[in-house]
Amino acid sequence: MPNFDPPDPNFEARVRESFERQRVMETIGARLKRVEPGGVEIELPFRHDLTQQHGYLHAGIVTTVVDSACGYAAMSLTPPGAEIVSVEFKINLLSPATGDLLVARALVKRAGRNITVCAGDAFMSGGAQEEKLVATMLATMMTVRGRA
Amino acid sequence: MPNFDPPDPNFEARVRESFERQRVMETIGARLKRVEPGGVEIELPFRHDLTQQHGYLHAGIVTTVVDSACGYAAMSLTPPGAEIVSVEFKINLLSPATGDLLVARALVKRAGRNITVCAGDAFMSGGAQEEKLVATMLATMMTVRGRA
Amino acid sequence: MPNFDPPDPNFEARVRESFERQRVMETIGARLKRVEPGGVEIELPFRHDLTQQHGYLHAGIVTTVVDSACGYAAMSLTPPGAEIVSVEFKINLLSPATGDLLVARALVKRAGRNITVCAGDAFMSGGAQEEKLVATMLATMMTVRGRA
Amino acid sequence: MPNFDPPDPNFEARVRESFERQRVMETIGARLKRVEPGGVEIELPFRHDLTQQHGYLHAGIVTTVVDSACGYAAMSLTPPGAEIVSVEFKINLLSPATGDLLVARALVKRAGRNITVCAGDAFMSGGAQEEKLVATMLATMMTVRGRA
Repeated sequence: MPNFDPPDPNFEARVRESFERQRVMETIGARLKRVEPGGVEIELPFRHDLTQQHGYLHAGIVTTVVDSACGYAAMSLTPPGAEIVSVEFKINLLSPATGDLLVARALVKRAGRNITVCAGDAFMSGGAQEEKLVATMLATMMTVRGRA
Repeated sequence: MPNFDPPDPNFEARVRESFERQRVMETIGARLKRVEPGGVEIELPFRHDLTQQHGYLHAGIVTTVVDSACGYAAMSLTPPGAEIVSVEFKINLLSPATGDLLVARALVKRAGRNITVCAGDAFMSGGAQEEKLVATMLATMMTVRGRA
Repeated sequence: MPNFDPPDPNFEARVRESFERQRVMETIGARLKRVEPGGVEIELPFRHDLTQQHGYLHAGIVTTVVDSACGYAAMSLTPPGAEIVSVEFKINLLSPATGDLLVARALVKRAGRNITVCAGDAFMSGGAQEEKLVATMLATMMTVRGRA
Repeated sequence: MPNFDPPDPNFEARVRESFERQRVMETIGARLKRVEPGGVEIELPFRHDLTQQHGYLHAGIVTTVVDSACGYAAMSLTPPGAEIVSVEFKINLLSPATGDLLVARALVKRAGRNITVCAGDAFMSGGAQEEKLVATMLATMMTVRGRA
């Protein structure tokens, strides 16, 4: 993982406060775990009411968690008062998202003044099962200044 | 829109029955509207408990709806007993997803034996507001046979 | 196609002059055809020295042409003196790129102040063969001002 | 890097033989360097006749090299006689591709029976300059059997 120097020493509080305002995170039961400079981890316990037709987590729900992880990884490297919006992302679904717990881990690949590119992986685990990679994302985030 | 000849005359019932099993659709309040050969429309009324930090529908929720629309557009052109899984998709978020109603419309761009590629657009409308394009997706779907 | 009002009446000359400076276009033999507000067409005659291992045009060469078409479609809607850089793109390869002539057609899906999103399709034709869709791209372009 | 066990002990010869048949690689001057199970490296010396309007390597040329690296990383894990075709890829352009040498490194993220997903990075170096990440790709490859 690259060693980033965050321009805002208060980055973690700012990320956590923004996450609290993402109402969909509470709706689906996602929890913000680690927040580091350029790296964020979000967890989602498996729930049957979030599944697709075969009983796996819907690709869009996996995406919701990984997108937020990418967005907050980008936000951790922004100056005070800046916000992040998702420009676009692409995600490959690699394995059925079944198990007890989904963990999304996002890392900044390049932080620019306006555009930040992040990579995010999602893993499922459960029971005696080791973590299994279920999805991988490449995302483009944009910094929006002066809204605070 | 291309003029597709569906190999399964019962395609619409098959798509609607699969949609009913996507429990996340009921959880977020999405409704399957039109189902045509190679084209599907899904609606999602705006709900505050599906929003991100600025009060817009979360990009992942928009994605959930457009991905399902793409998947079912692909499924409409499969033979009886076949299923569709999402291989990957990419989505651009074009405008804030705010308004009363999100409508996702997906069309098959090319249907192959194994791989089907779909394009999906999401629009928001509300009040006197005209439909506004808020997101556009390009998705790769895979046909899985013989699970029925 | 959306009806765009170009902010620079001189857009076509500006696009054509920039295309002339893309030395790779001459190297591979690509030609700029139509330039309209928000829409551009580029042609590439098939050449064996641009192929991959099965004798089709390499996916990267198809991409080169569609990316330039998307970039110039975006540039056609920028103010005088602005440049366009590719932020990212995604392309699906739908059919083998074989035939006499590749035609790439790009359209702006949404033009923003900083970010413009374009869709591009590539078709092959040749002999008595009708145009066949061989690839489809969704691209994110960024406007860079004040370099002129 | 994951530790892959290649099903074909002759994978390297098979990859190198296929690369030799990609005529575009010779046209642009690309060279196949390392070939390992699930990992491939391709180099491209900078050439002015491959540039875009600002004198950098064209995004499509960078893509050509990274796509081939991803494809051959996938091919290194296929059984004898199998071929690889690119289903789709997405690439982010992170920095201007200027310098003396472009190096593309691709790794398999997940190898499936039909679908293999690869990640590829492109770096530029030159003079006293350290390697700089200029692009990153996420690619979907499909295995085609029985053509040999």
